[in-house]
Amino acid sequence: MRSGPADFEVLATPPPDGATRARLGRLTLSHGVVDTPQFMPVGTNATVKALHPDDLEEVGASIILANTYHLYLRPGHERIERLGGLHRFMGWERPILTDSGGFQVVSLGDLRVVDDDGVTFRSHVDGSLHRFTPEHAIDVQEALGSDVAVAFDQPVRPGSSSRAEVAEATERTHHWAERSLAAHSRPDQAIFGIVQGGLEPDLRADSTRFIASLPFDGICLGGLAGDETAEERNAALDVAVPVLDGDPRVRYLMGLGSPLDMLEAVHRGVDLFDSVLPARVARTGQVWIPEGRLNLRNQRFLDDGEPIQDGCPCLACRRFSRAYLAHLFRAKELLAYRLATCHNLTFTLDFMARIRSALRAGTFPGMLPELRSRASRISVGEAAVQSA
Amino acid sequence: MRSGPADFEVLATPPPDGATRARLGRLTLSHGVVDTPQFMPVGTNATVKALHPDDLEEVGASIILANTYHLYLRPGHERIERLGGLHRFMGWERPILTDSGGFQVVSLGDLRVVDDDGVTFRSHVDGSLHRFTPEHAIDVQEALGSDVAVAFDQPVRPGSSSRAEVAEATERTHHWAERSLAAHSRPDQAIFGIVQGGLEPDLRADSTRFIASLPFDGICLGGLAGDETAEERNAALDVAVPVLDGDPRVRYLMGLGSPLDMLEAVHRGVDLFDSVLPARVARTGQVWIPEGRLNLRNQRFLDDGEPIQDGCPCLACRRFSRAYLAHLFRAKELLAYRLATCHNLTFTLDFMARIRSALRAGTFPGMLPELRSRASRISVGEAAVQSA
Repeated sequence: MRSGPADFEVLATPPPDGATRARLGRLTLSHGVVDTPQFMPVGTNATVKALHPDDLEEVGASIILANTYHLYLRPGHERIERLGGLHRFMGWERPILTDSGGFQVVSLGDLRVVDDDGVTFRSHVDGSLHRFTPEHAIDVQEALGSDVAVAFDQPVRPGSSSRAEVAEATERTHHWAERSLAAHSRPDQAIFGIVQGGLEPDLRADSTRFIASLPFDGICLGGLAGDETAEERNAALDVAVPVLDGDPRVRYLMGLGSPLDMLEAVHRGVDLFDSVLPARVARTGQVWIPEGRLNLRNQRFLDDGEPIQDGCPCLACRRFSRAYLAHLFRAKELLAYRLATCHNLTFTLDFMARIRSALRAGTFPGMLPELRSRASRISVGEAAVQSA
Repeated sequence: MRSGPADFEVLATPPPDGATRARLGRLTLSHGVVDTPQFMPVGTNATVKALHPDDLEEVGASIILANTYHLYLRPGHERIERLGGLHRFMGWERPILTDSGGFQVVSLGDLRVVDDDGVTFRSHVDGSLHRFTPEHAIDVQEALGSDVAVAFDQPVRPGSSSRAEVAEATERTHHWAERSLAAHSRPDQAIFGIVQGGLEPDLRADSTRFIASLPFDGICLGGLAGDETAEERNAALDVAVPVLDGDPRVRYLMGLGSPLDMLEAVHRGVDLFDSVLPARVARTGQVWIPEGRLNLRNQRFLDDGEPIQDGCPCLACRRFSRAYLAHLFRAKELLAYRLATCHNLTFTLDFMARIRSALRAGTFPGMLPELRSRASRISVGEAAVQSA
């Protein structure tokens, strides 16, 4: 393991009784410190949709994720490099993790052709033809200058891929991991490797072992948070994390963002998460509160003079009523999207802070039922609760 | 004239040599003081599009306009009243002027039928049938609780209406002005009357005399800022304002927002303006700077690391480059609209502050050529200038 660009320190180890694998940690990156377990808001196009960097600080974000694929296509990684790098470009001076582009290349690119050397795909923006290889994905991330780069991988749908498909993609991901590491040279940037293996226990375990054998600065658990069930995902984590027992590196489950899903993954030993979910649902008018989920497009909120969540310190709750938000959503006013996003990210990051507090106090196992209950109430797919 | 809800004080009177009719003033309303000449950003749906009230304070807004017609239809004036009034509803505790709805009823409502008692129209939101009378327009504005209500009027297109159409609408506006005044009872709310008369010098002069004869707290010059030329508008002002010579009340030209148009109207004795223009053009990517107008959608800005305007204190210029803004506009990211709006409103309100400084110093006539030159460069319709 290299040291420097991603020092990870476990501050509270799981109890020896095996009640949980959850741990408290601190990840130190070039642009700052990230307390874990932690959630990373997603700034796909070098902006977390509807928010200003000051909003991100206010909601409590300590690190964000930016999408390599999107920024490569528009405005271009070389352009961002000429303009002083991604932090300066987007006015965010705290840590940034860039994904590898693998997920987007496979899910967003049309006419993709995967071969052992890389992936050829068409841009979702203008249809132009592009090619990503492990070396190119690292080049792009080095030009962007993120705190953490991620090795290029080939994810497959976890719930609906054959064992043969998973095996082939996992094998390829391993070769690409080695090539990504070899291509990486920026000393102020960490590089994380991605475990694949789908939902096949032996492939998942082998992949974890293989990726962990390479000198990455952190371990991503990829190929999850897709079309698998929560039970399948948890089972995959129960295979992968024990393999990492004693490994000093940070563990990052890519693409997970619902509080309940994150809680279960923390419980199984994961430290880091990212997802567009809290912000995306906010932009549809769905906001999260301790009592459940409110759909601000619902008629009854038009007359509700209470804030979204009593006592919440966010930009929305400090000054505005549910009635005002409900009006803004109906009138399609832009302020609605910013206010609701600030609220949901505040809620999500506060939830992670509660988890960290319990871990710090050594009360996490005992708090699990209460945290589960809180998180369950706002789970996506659940019916909206009555107004508090 | 009543006193109280709209005290207007002329702080610097025009020079006796007749070089200009421009004047410096201070309008004191229930929620605060408005230095004039002044521009009011427009918050159609109880929000200035893309901005938070804190943004409005930061760009230097001291008063905003909200649209009676829109708020009546959605979310409803009675609802806003139940929720504590418009200021509380939208989180803006400084002055608000509501228009009368006359302009929107005539320009946005489908199937409108104007009779001597009022206007019947269909909602542009859901097609439902509604009726506005002078009494109802005042009721709605009293429920909203704006600092300034405006009498219900019947505007007509200034440049393309026959003399007979103008005469009929002006006559009707006069009757409605008397009925609006009679209906108005809220002591903490001022009421302004609207002059019509189109571009017909005698009708414009008569209308000014008539409206000025009524005990309104301020005089609106309506039926301009439409399809007339600048010369026609200036000629109408040169007819109306002299009629108001010696009248102690504030003069407000409705719907004007380009700096050059406002400068010429200030020069002719107008104190107050409103328009969606600076914000609307900002949302299309057009930003105003001292050297002219920049279209941030232009390819060349993608590589421009400079702020929109060097030294500008606005939210956009303090932290971001033209390149970042250009990227956000291309990616249709919501932050673009907020940043560009903050810039254009900062520019516009700074332009009005420069006019006030010149009036305070007694140098306005001498500064006119420079102010005209500055304003001309960003006039709407002009080709985008080269990057500074």
